[in-house]
Amino acid sequence: MAYGDIDAWETTGRIETLVDGIFAIALTLLVLNLSIPQLTNSMSNIAVEDYLIGLIPDLFTYALSFVILAIFWRINHQQFYRIKRANNVLLWITVIWLLFVALVPFSTSLMGGYGETQAANIFFNINLLLIGIFSGLIWYYATKKDFIEELSREKIIELNKLNLMLPIAALIAIGASFIIPAFSTITYLAIPLIKRIIRA
Amino acid sequence: MAYGDIDAWETTGRIETLVDGIFAIALTLLVLNLSIPQLTNSMSNIAVEDYLIGLIPDLFTYALSFVILAIFWRINHQQFYRIKRANNVLLWITVIWLLFVALVPFSTSLMGGYGETQAANIFFNINLLLIGIFSGLIWYYATKKDFIEELSREKIIELNKLNLMLPIAALIAIGASFIIPAFSTITYLAIPLIKRIIRA
Amino acid sequence: MAYGDIDAWETTGRIETLVDGIFAIALTLLVLNLSIPQLTNSMSNIAVEDYLIGLIPDLFTYALSFVILAIFWRINHQQFYRIKRANNVLLWITVIWLLFVALVPFSTSLMGGYGETQAANIFFNINLLLIGIFSGLIWYYATKKDFIEELSREKIIELNKLNLMLPIAALIAIGASFIIPAFSTITYLAIPLIKRIIRA
Amino acid sequence: MAYGDIDAWETTGRIETLVDGIFAIALTLLVLNLSIPQLTNSMSNIAVEDYLIGLIPDLFTYALSFVILAIFWRINHQQFYRIKRANNVLLWITVIWLLFVALVPFSTSLMGGYGETQAANIFFNINLLLIGIFSGLIWYYATKKDFIEELSREKIIELNKLNLMLPIAALIAIGASFIIPAFSTITYLAIPLIKRIIRA
Repeated sequence: MAYGDIDAWETTGRIETLVDGIFAIALTLLVLNLSIPQLTNSMSNIAVEDYLIGLIPDLFTYALSFVILAIFWRINHQQFYRIKRANNVLLWITVIWLLFVALVPFSTSLMGGYGETQAANIFFNINLLLIGIFSGLIWYYATKKDFIEELSREKIIELNKLNLMLPIAALIAIGASFIIPAFSTITYLAIPLIKRIIRA
Repeated sequence: MAYGDIDAWETTGRIETLVDGIFAIALTLLVLNLSIPQLTNSMSNIAVEDYLIGLIPDLFTYALSFVILAIFWRINHQQFYRIKRANNVLLWITVIWLLFVALVPFSTSLMGGYGETQAANIFFNINLLLIGIFSGLIWYYATKKDFIEELSREKIIELNKLNLMLPIAALIAIGASFIIPAFSTITYLAIPLIKRIIRA
Repeated sequence: MAYGDIDAWETTGRIETLVDGIFAIALTLLVLNLSIPQLTNSMSNIAVEDYLIGLIPDLFTYALSFVILAIFWRINHQQFYRIKRANNVLLWITVIWLLFVALVPFSTSLMGGYGETQAANIFFNINLLLIGIFSGLIWYYATKKDFIEELSREKIIELNKLNLMLPIAALIAIGASFIIPAFSTITYLAIPLIKRIIRA
Repeated sequence: MAYGDIDAWETTGRIETLVDGIFAIALTLLVLNLSIPQLTNSMSNIAVEDYLIGLIPDLFTYALSFVILAIFWRINHQQFYRIKRANNVLLWITVIWLLFVALVPFSTSLMGGYGETQAANIFFNINLLLIGIFSGLIWYYATKKDFIEELSREKIIELNKLNLMLPIAALIAIGASFIIPAFSTITYLAIPLIKRIIRA
């Protein structure tokens, strides 16, 4: 802010450090959604077994969110491999994107607790939709401002099209929330298909 | 401490790493203020909807604190782009600044729970005031000690003046806490105006 | 994902940053398993002493998990010292490995609470088994794809054999869980012996 | 472990990353000890004021632990500025040191809750004693193994003596815990005096 005029020089090193830090923490905080039962001294082996079996859906949600976050990190990783400069606008698009990324542990715990309700599914899918939109915006803005090096015009346009993939999947999942809430997240398994259609 | 005599050489690399780490964590911990309701097995869709609607003020506080912290990170980012050396004093100013930065998740949760009380607003605004003061001190001290490179005298003085912006906004917000507690944070939206006045 | 075609170039810098971040957080979250007792104002010195003495097994579990995680970090550290390139497959093997690494604070708290039950021991040991397997896979895949530099054929094969060490220890520990649950983790002290047998 | 034979080459980059990560998290977790009171809808301004006034000792403990951790980070920062190589032993001394560093948020919350008891004070001071000892060991071992560059023999010996400073302060604080538990931590303010005596 205060130094707004001297940032044409901006390099991307510290943005990447912040991104990596926030992802590392968001990924690790997902585990906090797995709470161990209250300490009752006389907990038998069978009780622990039952508890662990009941934990399977939560472990699935944990793994799903971990992989989804890793996909977004991966995409950013590849974007900033190509983006060589940044400015204030690009930084703030990235910050808003991170704001929704850091919300994922909360959305995940909401799904873990109330995954069968439509409201929780819509919230979770809107969260992913916004992450997808801002992730796409990072690339779109960076290419428009010529912050990219060594990439052909066709490649850049193709990648811009591929960036629609995750928002489209999220929109379908939001639609699915109105019909079969408990299974809306299955939509994301259709991503390879969406990818093929976009490319066609 | 023990190695106090050999730090004229000090480079700023690891200070920046610590700063980025603390910001990444503080930003991600903000989400812990969004607690999901107790697990009652028979939670209906409408109950989850009501809960999520009731969560809107907390989501707003989350976004506000996220953006404010990002602004401070951004300012530090630009300061250390220019600061080429450091010494013990600069390091400790930065540590005290981080001490108040790391307090923001707590201040935010206080605002989330009791944002309508004057006490919570004063606490939150004093926290931001102290962050603003120490952020300004980092730049003031670094310029005074000639740790800066490639920046004109006028530019440095102008930036020192701009660093008053956030403390002034925080002081106005503290004043506003005595009149309309619940809306004191709106003051920060006046920052662009304060910026123009300082520059005039 | 979206950028899948342009990743032959992949360097390993940001993977290492993510790995280091997740380990730093997982290591530090282990301490959250040490909960202080509820605040009862009249807590006497003797009550605090009793509480701290009762905490000894939890401190032992904390130290054990800290050291085990540090061993895995160490192994990764040395692997990526040698691995000079990466591709999508290697990245995703590493992500799945991290998924199980980030689960360790939970497994540890399960052991802290119910370490005498067979179920908790099996869960903990399976977690370590999976970490060991994916850690070995990272090296196996990287060597198969020739992502390694300056290491002799014999050395690579020897290291592949040594990577079986931790999975074998974990399998023995799983076996031991059926006989003497509370002491299954002692198995890991036999690792130097397993190492010698593999090398023979 | 598995790669034990190929680590003569070891550089210190990733050790420093892990150290910085753990400190950033431990510093930020300290704030979790400041818990906001239960949400009672009718919380008045005076109740929040009373709560915040009652929080002053906890804020003091927060600041004290923040500064103590920053001192240890600072010392490590300066040590590794000089240490140019590492081996397995140095790495594991650092890991054990980090194990006690990561324990500080817990010790601090113990002090926050039961700072007037002797048991809590002894636990807190022993924690600092162990951090001090392992911090000194890092330097002692690195100098003994000639991992240091560009530092005179006299300087190295002087620094080894100065590393006794924190353990001595911790030992005095442990002694003080038996006499005036609630004020044992004041001992650390005597560090500048101890420093002068050691140097004499």
